[in-house]
Amino acid sequence: MKKKPFSEKTIERLILYRRLLMNIDPAEKPNIYSHELSLLTGFTSAQIRRDLMAIGYSGSPVKGYDIKKLFSSLSDFIDADEVQQVAIIGLGQLGRAIVNYFRGRRKKLEITVAFDKDPNKINRVVNGVHCHSIDLLEKIIAEKGIRIAILAIPEDQAQTMGERLAEAGITGILNYAPTQLKLPVSVYVENRDMIMAVEKVAYFSRQLDVEKPHESVS
Amino acid sequence: MKKKPFSEKTIERLILYRRLLMNIDPAEKPNIYSHELSLLTGFTSAQIRRDLMAIGYSGSPVKGYDIKKLFSSLSDFIDADEVQQVAIIGLGQLGRAIVNYFRGRRKKLEITVAFDKDPNKINRVVNGVHCHSIDLLEKIIAEKGIRIAILAIPEDQAQTMGERLAEAGITGILNYAPTQLKLPVSVYVENRDMIMAVEKVAYFSRQLDVEKPHESVS
Repeated sequence: MKKKPFSEKTIERLILYRRLLMNIDPAEKPNIYSHELSLLTGFTSAQIRRDLMAIGYSGSPVKGYDIKKLFSSLSDFIDADEVQQVAIIGLGQLGRAIVNYFRGRRKKLEITVAFDKDPNKINRVVNGVHCHSIDLLEKIIAEKGIRIAILAIPEDQAQTMGERLAEAGITGILNYAPTQLKLPVSVYVENRDMIMAVEKVAYFSRQLDVEKPHESVS
Repeated sequence: MKKKPFSEKTIERLILYRRLLMNIDPAEKPNIYSHELSLLTGFTSAQIRRDLMAIGYSGSPVKGYDIKKLFSSLSDFIDADEVQQVAIIGLGQLGRAIVNYFRGRRKKLEITVAFDKDPNKINRVVNGVHCHSIDLLEKIIAEKGIRIAILAIPEDQAQTMGERLAEAGITGILNYAPTQLKLPVSVYVENRDMIMAVEKVAYFSRQLDVEKPHESVS
Protein backbone atom coordinates (compact mmCIF):
# COMPACT_ATOMS: atom_id res chain seq x y z
CA MET A 1 0.00 0.00 0.00
CA LYS A 2 1.48 3.32 -1.05
CA LYS A 3 0.89 6.16 1.38
CA LYS A 4 -0.18 9.54 0.06
CA PRO A 5 2.92 11.71 0.32
CA PHE A 6 2.94 14.36 3.02
CA SER A 7 3.94 17.90 2.12
CA GLU A 8 7.02 19.57 3.57
CA LYS A 9 4.80 21.96 5.52
CA THR A 10 2.82 19.09 7.05
CA ILE A 11 6.01 17.31 8.10
CA GLU A 12 7.32 20.54 9.64
CA ARG A 13 4.10 20.91 11.63
CA LEU A 14 4.16 17.30 12.85
CA ILE A 15 7.79 17.71 13.94
CA LEU A 16 6.86 20.90 15.76
CA TYR A 17 3.93 19.25 17.58
CA ARG A 18 6.23 16.57 18.89
CA ARG A 19 8.87 19.13 19.82
CA LEU A 20 6.32 21.05 21.91
CA LEU A 21 5.03 17.90 23.59
CA MET A 22 8.60 17.25 24.79
CA ASN A 23 8.23 20.25 27.09
CA ILE A 24 5.15 18.83 28.79
CA ASP A 25 5.34 16.29 31.59
CA PRO A 26 2.46 13.83 31.02
CA ALA A 27 2.48 13.03 34.75
CA GLU A 28 1.41 16.61 35.40
CA LYS A 29 -0.69 17.18 32.30
CA PRO A 30 -1.88 13.93 30.72
CA ASN A 31 -4.08 15.45 27.99
CA ILE A 32 -3.96 18.29 25.53
CA TYR A 33 -6.69 19.81 23.35
CA SER A 34 -6.22 20.88 19.76
CA HIS A 35 -7.00 24.45 20.82
CA GLU A 36 -4.09 24.30 23.28
CA LEU A 37 -1.79 23.05 20.54
CA SER A 38 -3.17 25.88 18.44
CA LEU A 39 -2.10 28.42 21.08
CA LEU A 40 1.39 26.91 21.24
CA THR A 41 1.92 26.72 17.49
CA GLY A 42 -0.18 29.45 15.93
CA PHE A 43 -1.85 26.92 13.61
CA THR A 44 -5.65 26.57 13.70
CA SER A 45 -7.27 23.79 15.73
CA ALA A 46 -8.84 22.48 12.53
CA GLN A 47 -5.42 22.25 10.88
CA ILE A 48 -3.99 20.42 13.88
CA ARG A 49 -6.87 17.93 13.99
CA ARG A 50 -6.48 17.26 10.26
CA ASP A 51 -2.72 16.71 10.65
CA LEU A 52 -3.12 14.30 13.54
CA MET A 53 -5.92 12.40 11.84
CA ALA A 54 -3.66 12.04 8.80
CA ILE A 55 -1.15 10.11 10.90
CA GLY A 56 -3.96 8.00 12.31
CA TYR A 57 -4.41 9.51 15.75
CA SER A 58 -7.62 11.12 16.91
CA GLY A 59 -8.37 12.48 20.34
CA SER A 60 -11.53 12.44 22.38
CA PRO A 61 -13.70 15.58 22.13
CA VAL A 62 -14.05 15.50 25.91
CA LYS A 63 -10.49 14.79 27.07
CA GLY A 64 -8.48 15.93 24.09
CA TYR A 65 -5.37 14.01 23.09
CA ASP A 66 -3.60 11.65 25.44
CA ILE A 67 -0.13 13.22 25.45
CA LYS A 68 1.82 9.99 25.86
CA LYS A 69 -0.07 8.28 23.05
CA LEU A 70 0.08 11.33 20.82
CA PHE A 71 3.81 11.61 21.38
CA SER A 72 4.26 7.98 20.54
CA SER A 73 2.08 8.23 17.39
CA LEU A 74 4.03 11.27 16.23
CA SER A 75 7.33 9.50 16.90
CA ASP A 76 6.22 6.41 15.00
CA PHE A 77 5.49 8.63 12.06
CA ILE A 78 8.49 10.99 12.22
CA ASP A 79 11.20 8.52 13.15
CA ALA A 80 12.55 5.49 11.39
CA ASP A 81 12.25 2.10 13.10
CA GLU A 82 16.00 1.95 13.58
CA VAL A 83 18.35 4.77 14.51
CA GLN A 84 19.16 6.85 11.43
CA GLN A 85 22.82 7.76 11.26
CA VAL A 86 23.91 11.23 10.26
CA ALA A 87 27.30 12.29 8.92
CA ILE A 88 28.58 15.79 9.45
CA ILE A 89 30.89 17.26 6.83
CA GLY A 90 33.13 19.96 8.26
CA LEU A 91 34.11 20.26 11.90
CA GLY A 92 34.78 23.98 12.01
CA GLN A 93 33.02 26.12 14.60
CA LEU A 94 29.61 25.53 13.05
CA GLY A 95 30.09 21.79 12.65
CA ARG A 96 31.23 21.41 16.23
CA ALA A 97 28.34 23.54 17.46
CA ILE A 98 25.88 21.31 15.61
CA VAL A 99 27.44 18.14 17.05
CA ASN A 100 27.17 19.63 20.54
CA TYR A 101 23.56 20.67 20.08
CA PHE A 102 22.63 17.30 18.74
CA ARG A 103 24.13 14.95 21.26
CA GLY A 104 21.56 12.79 23.02
CA ARG A 105 18.56 14.88 22.03
CA ARG A 106 16.85 12.37 19.77
CA LYS A 107 16.65 8.61 20.20
CA LYS A 108 16.37 7.78 16.52
CA LEU A 109 18.85 10.24 15.03
CA GLU A 110 22.54 10.18 15.77
CA ILE A 111 25.57 11.95 14.31
CA THR A 112 27.87 8.94 14.15
CA VAL A 113 30.69 10.21 11.98
CA ALA A 114 32.39 13.42 10.92
CA PHE A 115 34.63 14.28 7.98
CA ASP A 116 37.16 17.06 7.69
CA LYS A 117 40.31 17.78 5.72
CA ASP A 118 42.19 19.31 8.67
CA PRO A 119 44.96 16.88 9.78
CA ASN A 120 44.53 18.18 13.35
CA LYS A 121 41.01 16.76 13.42
CA ILE A 122 41.40 13.57 11.40
CA ASN A 123 41.40 10.36 13.46
CA ARG A 124 40.45 12.25 16.57
CA VAL A 125 37.21 12.26 18.51
CA VAL A 126 35.79 15.78 18.40
CA ASN A 127 32.83 16.53 20.65
CA GLY A 128 32.20 12.81 20.93
CA VAL A 129 32.24 12.05 17.22
CA HIS A 130 35.04 10.30 15.35
CA CYS A 131 36.46 12.47 12.59
CA HIS A 132 37.71 10.84 9.40
CA SER A 133 39.66 12.21 6.49
CA ILE A 134 37.38 13.56 3.78
CA ASP A 135 39.25 11.22 1.43
CA LEU A 136 37.45 8.29 3.06
CA LEU A 137 33.98 9.82 2.61
CA GLU A 138 32.62 7.39 0.01
CA LYS A 139 34.10 4.32 1.69
CA ILE A 140 32.77 5.04 5.17
CA ILE A 141 29.34 6.22 4.06
CA ALA A 142 28.91 2.99 2.10
CA GLU A 143 30.24 0.78 4.91
CA LYS A 144 27.97 2.35 7.49
CA GLY A 145 24.99 2.71 5.14
CA ILE A 146 24.59 6.38 6.03
CA ARG A 147 21.91 8.31 4.13
CA ILE A 148 21.82 11.71 5.83
CA ALA A 149 24.50 14.39 5.85
CA ILE A 150 24.87 17.86 7.31
CA LEU A 151 27.06 20.23 5.30
CA ALA A 152 28.97 22.70 7.44
CA ILE A 153 31.72 23.74 5.05
CA PRO A 154 32.54 26.98 3.19
CA GLU A 155 30.32 27.84 0.25
CA ASP A 156 32.98 27.45 -2.44
CA GLN A 157 33.26 23.73 -1.60
CA ALA A 158 29.58 23.02 -0.97
CA GLN A 159 28.37 22.19 -4.48
CA THR A 160 31.25 19.77 -5.20
CA MET A 161 30.76 18.12 -1.82
CA GLY A 162 27.00 17.87 -2.38
CA GLU A 163 27.66 16.02 -5.63
CA ARG A 164 30.10 13.65 -3.91
CA LEU A 165 27.52 12.93 -1.22
CA ALA A 166 24.81 12.24 -3.79
CA GLU A 167 27.15 9.84 -5.61
CA ALA A 168 28.01 8.16 -2.33
CA GLY A 169 24.36 7.24 -1.70
CA ILE A 170 23.26 10.10 0.57
CA THR A 171 19.55 10.89 0.09
CA GLY A 172 19.11 13.80 2.50
CA ILE A 173 21.32 16.86 2.96
CA LEU A 174 20.95 19.70 5.40
CA ASN A 175 23.08 22.45 3.88
CA TYR A 176 24.37 25.27 6.09
CA ALA A 177 26.76 26.66 3.48
CA PRO A 178 25.43 29.98 2.16
CA THR A 179 24.76 28.62 -1.30
CA GLN A 180 21.93 26.79 -3.05
CA LEU A 181 22.93 23.23 -3.94
CA LYS A 182 21.84 21.92 -7.31
CA LEU A 183 21.52 18.15 -7.02
CA PRO A 184 19.48 15.35 -8.63
CA VAL A 185 15.89 14.94 -7.39
CA SER A 186 16.98 11.68 -5.81
CA VAL A 187 18.50 13.77 -2.99
CA TYR A 188 16.38 15.84 -0.65
CA VAL A 189 18.16 19.11 0.12
CA GLU A 190 17.23 21.59 2.81
CA ASN A 191 19.18 24.84 2.47
CA ARG A 192 19.59 26.80 5.68
CA ASP A 193 21.50 29.90 4.63
CA MET A 194 21.99 31.82 7.88
CA ILE A 195 22.45 35.14 6.18
CA MET A 196 19.20 34.83 4.23
CA ALA A 197 17.50 34.03 7.53
CA VAL A 198 18.83 37.25 9.04
CA GLU A 199 17.72 39.18 5.95
CA LYS A 200 14.20 37.88 6.42
CA VAL A 201 14.17 38.79 10.11
CA ALA A 202 15.60 42.23 9.28
CA TYR A 203 12.84 42.85 6.75
CA PHE A 204 10.00 41.95 9.12
CA SER A 205 11.70 43.74 11.99
CA ARG A 206 11.52 46.95 9.92
CA GLN A 207 7.81 46.48 9.23
CA LEU A 208 7.24 46.28 12.99
CA ASP A 209 9.47 49.32 13.59
CA VAL A 210 7.16 51.41 11.42
CA GLU A 211 4.24 50.44 13.63
CA LYS A 212 6.16 50.92 16.87
CA PRO A 213 8.78 53.70 16.58
CA HIS A 214 11.85 53.39 18.80
CA GLU A 215 11.93 55.82 21.69
CA SER A 216 14.68 58.25 20.90
CA VAL A 217 17.71 57.97 23.13
CA SER A 218 19.35 61.33 23.65
CA MET B 1 0.50 55.31 1.13
CA LYS B 2 0.38 52.01 2.97
CA LYS B 3 1.90 49.12 1.07
CA LYS B 4 0.11 45.80 0.94
CA PRO B 5 2.07 43.55 3.29
CA PHE B 6 4.19 40.86 1.69
CA SER B 7 3.93 37.30 2.98
CA GLU B 8 6.85 35.48 4.57
CA LYS B 9 7.02 33.14 1.59
CA THR B 10 7.20 36.04 -0.86
CA ILE B 11 9.98 37.69 1.13
CA GLU B 12 11.88 34.39 1.22
CA ARG B 13 11.58 34.09 -2.55
CA LEU B 14 12.75 37.66 -3.15
CA ILE B 15 15.74 37.13 -0.87
CA LEU B 16 16.56 33.93 -2.74
CA TYR B 17 16.36 35.64 -6.16
CA ARG B 18 18.88 38.20 -5.02
CA ARG B 19 21.10 35.54 -3.49
CA LEU B 20 21.21 33.67 -6.79
CA LEU B 21 21.93 36.83 -8.79
CA MET B 22 25.01 37.35 -6.61
CA ASN B 23 26.55 34.31 -8.29
CA ILE B 24 26.15 35.81 -11.77
CA ASP B 25 28.64 38.28 -13.22
CA PRO B 26 26.57 40.85 -15.16
CA ALA B 27 29.62 41.60 -17.33
CA GLU B 28 29.40 38.03 -18.62
CA LYS B 29 25.63 37.60 -18.51
CA PRO B 30 23.77 40.91 -18.49
CA ASN B 31 20.21 39.53 -18.68
CA ILE B 32 18.18 36.72 -17.20
CA TYR B 33 14.77 35.33 -18.14
CA SER B 34 12.11 34.32 -15.68
CA HIS B 35 12.37 30.75 -16.98
CA GLU B 36 16.08 30.75 -16.08
CA LEU B 37 15.26 31.99 -12.59
CA SER B 38 12.65 29.24 -12.51
CA LEU B 39 15.32 26.62 -13.24
CA LEU B 40 17.55 27.99 -10.49
CA THR B 41 14.84 28.24 -7.86
CA GLY B 42 12.23 25.63 -8.69
CA PHE B 43 9.46 28.25 -8.63
CA THR B 44 7.33 28.73 -11.75
CA SER B 45 8.13 31.53 -14.21
CA ALA B 46 4.67 32.97 -13.58
CA GLN B 47 5.35 33.10 -9.83
CA ILE B 48 8.68 34.82 -10.40
CA ARG B 49 7.19 37.40 -12.77
CA ARG B 50 4.42 38.15 -10.25
CA ASP B 51 6.95 38.55 -7.41
CA LEU B 52 9.15 40.91 -9.39
CA MET B 53 6.19 42.96 -10.63
CA ALA B 54 5.07 43.30 -7.02
CA ILE B 55 8.31 45.09 -6.18
CA GLY B 56 7.89 47.27 -9.25
CA TYR B 57 10.34 45.72 -11.65
CA SER B 58 9.32 44.20 -14.97
CA GLY B 59 11.62 42.79 -17.62
CA SER B 60 11.39 42.91 -21.38
CA PRO B 61 9.82 39.85 -23.04
CA VAL B 62 12.70 39.87 -25.55
CA LYS B 63 15.73 40.42 -23.33
CA GLY B 64 14.47 39.26 -19.96
CA TYR B 65 15.52 41.10 -16.82
CA ASP B 66 18.57 43.36 -16.75
CA ILE B 67 20.56 41.67 -13.98
CA LYS B 68 22.16 44.81 -12.58
CA LYS B 69 18.83 46.65 -12.41
CA LEU B 70 17.01 43.64 -11.04
CA PHE B 71 19.65 43.21 -8.35
CA SER B 72 19.35 46.83 -7.44
CA SER B 73 15.52 46.73 -7.33
CA LEU B 74 15.62 43.64 -5.12
CA SER B 75 18.16 45.28 -2.83
CA ASP B 76 16.09 48.45 -2.55
CA PHE B 77 13.21 46.30 -1.46
CA ILE B 78 15.01 43.83 0.82
CA ASP B 79 17.45 46.19 2.51
CA ALA B 80 16.92 49.20 4.71
CA ASP B 81 18.26 52.57 3.51
CA GLU B 82 20.87 52.58 6.24
CA VAL B 83 22.89 49.66 7.56
CA GLN B 84 20.80 47.60 10.00
CA GLN B 85 22.77 46.57 13.04
CA VAL B 86 22.49 43.08 14.46
CA ALA B 87 23.37 41.92 17.98
CA ILE B 88 24.43 38.38 18.63
CA ILE B 89 23.59 36.87 21.99
CA GLY B 90 25.98 34.08 22.91
CA LEU B 91 29.50 33.67 21.56
CA GLY B 92 29.85 29.93 21.97
CA GLN B 93 30.83 27.81 18.99
CA LEU B 94 27.59 28.54 17.17
CA GLY B 95 27.68 32.28 17.84
CA ARG B 96 31.27 32.54 16.67
CA ALA B 97 30.49 30.49 13.57
CA ILE B 98 27.62 32.84 12.71
CA VAL B 99 29.80 35.93 13.19
CA ASN B 100 32.43 34.41 10.88
CA TYR B 101 29.90 33.48 8.21
CA PHE B 102 28.38 36.92 8.30
CA ARG B 103 31.39 39.18 8.09
CA GLY B 104 31.36 41.39 5.01
CA ARG B 105 28.74 39.41 3.14
CA ARG B 106 25.99 42.04 3.11
CA LYS B 107 26.35 45.80 2.77
CA LYS B 108 23.25 46.69 4.74
CA LEU B 109 23.41 44.17 7.58
CA GLU B 110 26.18 44.08 10.11
CA ILE B 111 26.72 42.24 13.39
CA THR B 112 28.03 45.17 15.40
CA VAL B 113 27.90 43.84 18.93
CA ALA B 114 27.93 40.59 20.88
CA PHE B 115 26.84 39.70 24.39
CA ASP B 116 27.97 36.85 26.57
CA LYS B 117 28.23 36.06 30.26
CA ASP B 118 31.66 34.42 30.00
CA PRO B 119 34.28 36.71 31.63
CA ASN B 120 36.87 35.38 29.18
CA LYS B 121 34.91 36.91 26.31
CA ILE B 122 33.60 40.12 27.86
CA ASN B 123 35.38 43.28 26.72
CA ARG B 124 37.27 41.38 24.09
CA VAL B 125 36.94 41.45 20.32
CA VAL B 126 35.87 37.98 19.18
CA ASN B 127 35.95 37.30 15.44
CA GLY B 128 35.94 41.05 14.84
CA VAL B 129 32.97 41.86 17.08
CA HIS B 130 33.16 43.54 20.46
CA CYS B 131 31.70 41.36 23.21
CA HIS B 132 29.91 43.03 26.12
CA SER B 133 28.64 41.64 29.37
CA ILE B 134 25.08 40.40 29.10
CA ASP B 135 24.36 42.73 32.03
CA LEU B 136 24.73 45.69 29.64
CA LEU B 137 22.26 44.28 27.11
CA GLU B 138 19.45 46.81 27.56
CA LYS B 139 21.79 49.79 27.83
CA ILE B 140 23.81 49.06 24.70
CA ILE B 141 20.84 48.03 22.56
CA ALA B 142 19.11 51.30 23.43
CA GLU B 143 22.26 53.39 22.86
CA LYS B 144 22.95 51.87 19.48
CA GLY B 145 19.29 51.65 18.45
CA ILE B 146 19.66 47.99 17.57
CA ARG B 147 16.46 46.19 16.48
CA ILE B 148 17.68 42.75 15.35
CA ALA B 149 19.17 39.98 17.46
CA ILE B 150 20.44 36.47 16.84
CA LEU B 151 20.01 34.06 19.75
CA ALA B 152 22.77 31.47 19.99
CA ILE B 153 22.41 30.39 23.61
CA PRO B 154 21.26 27.17 25.30
CA GLU B 155 17.54 26.44 25.22
CA ASP B 156 16.96 26.80 28.95
CA GLN B 157 17.93 30.48 28.75
CA ALA B 158 16.30 31.30 25.43
CA GLN B 159 12.78 32.26 26.53
CA THR B 160 13.98 34.59 29.31
CA MET B 161 16.49 36.18 26.97
CA GLY B 162 13.84 36.58 24.26
CA GLU B 163 11.66 38.46 26.75
CA ARG B 164 14.57 40.71 27.74
CA LEU B 165 15.27 41.47 24.09
CA ALA B 166 11.63 42.31 23.42
CA GLU B 167 11.61 44.66 26.44
CA ALA B 168 14.83 46.25 25.21
CA GLY B 169 13.22 47.28 21.91
CA ILE B 170 14.30 44.42 19.63
CA THR B 171 11.71 43.77 16.91
CA GLY B 172 13.30 40.85 15.10
CA ILE B 173 14.86 37.69 16.54
CA LEU B 174 16.53 34.82 14.76
CA ASN B 175 16.45 32.03 17.32
CA TYR B 176 18.89 29.12 17.02
CA ALA B 177 18.12 27.70 20.44
CA PRO B 178 16.15 24.45 20.11
CA THR B 179 13.01 25.91 21.62
CA GLN B 180 9.99 27.87 20.39
CA LEU B 181 9.99 31.40 21.79
CA LYS B 182 6.68 32.81 22.92
CA LEU B 183 6.86 36.60 22.55
CA PRO B 184 4.44 39.48 21.89
CA VAL B 185 3.36 40.00 18.27
CA SER B 186 5.40 43.20 18.28
CA VAL B 187 8.49 40.99 17.82
CA TYR B 188 9.07 38.96 14.70
CA VAL B 189 10.62 35.60 15.63
CA GLU B 190 12.17 33.11 13.24
CA ASN B 191 12.93 29.80 14.96
CA ARG B 192 15.69 27.76 13.38
CA ASP B 193 15.87 24.63 15.46
CA MET B 194 18.72 22.63 13.93
CA ILE B 195 17.49 19.32 15.23
CA MET B 196 14.01 19.79 13.77
CA ALA B 197 15.71 20.59 10.46
CA VAL B 198 17.60 17.30 10.59
CA GLU B 199 14.39 15.46 11.49
CA LYS B 200 12.73 16.87 8.38
CA VAL B 201 15.67 15.90 6.17
CA ALA B 202 15.72 12.43 7.74
CA TYR B 203 12.02 11.96 7.00
CA PHE B 204 12.31 12.91 3.32
CA SER B 205 15.57 11.01 2.97
CA ARG B 206 13.66 7.85 3.99
CA GLN B 207 10.96 8.47 1.40
CA LEU B 208 13.67 8.63 -1.27
CA ASP B 209 15.37 5.51 0.10
CA VAL B 210 12.20 3.55 -0.56
CA GLU B 211 12.33 4.58 -4.20
CA LYS B 212 16.07 3.99 -4.55
CA PRO B 213 17.26 1.13 -2.33
CA HIS B 214 20.87 1.28 -1.14
CA GLU B 215 23.19 -1.15 -2.85
CA SER B 216 24.14 -3.68 -0.26
CA VAL B 217 27.78 -3.52 0.78
CA SER B 218 29.18 -6.91 1.57
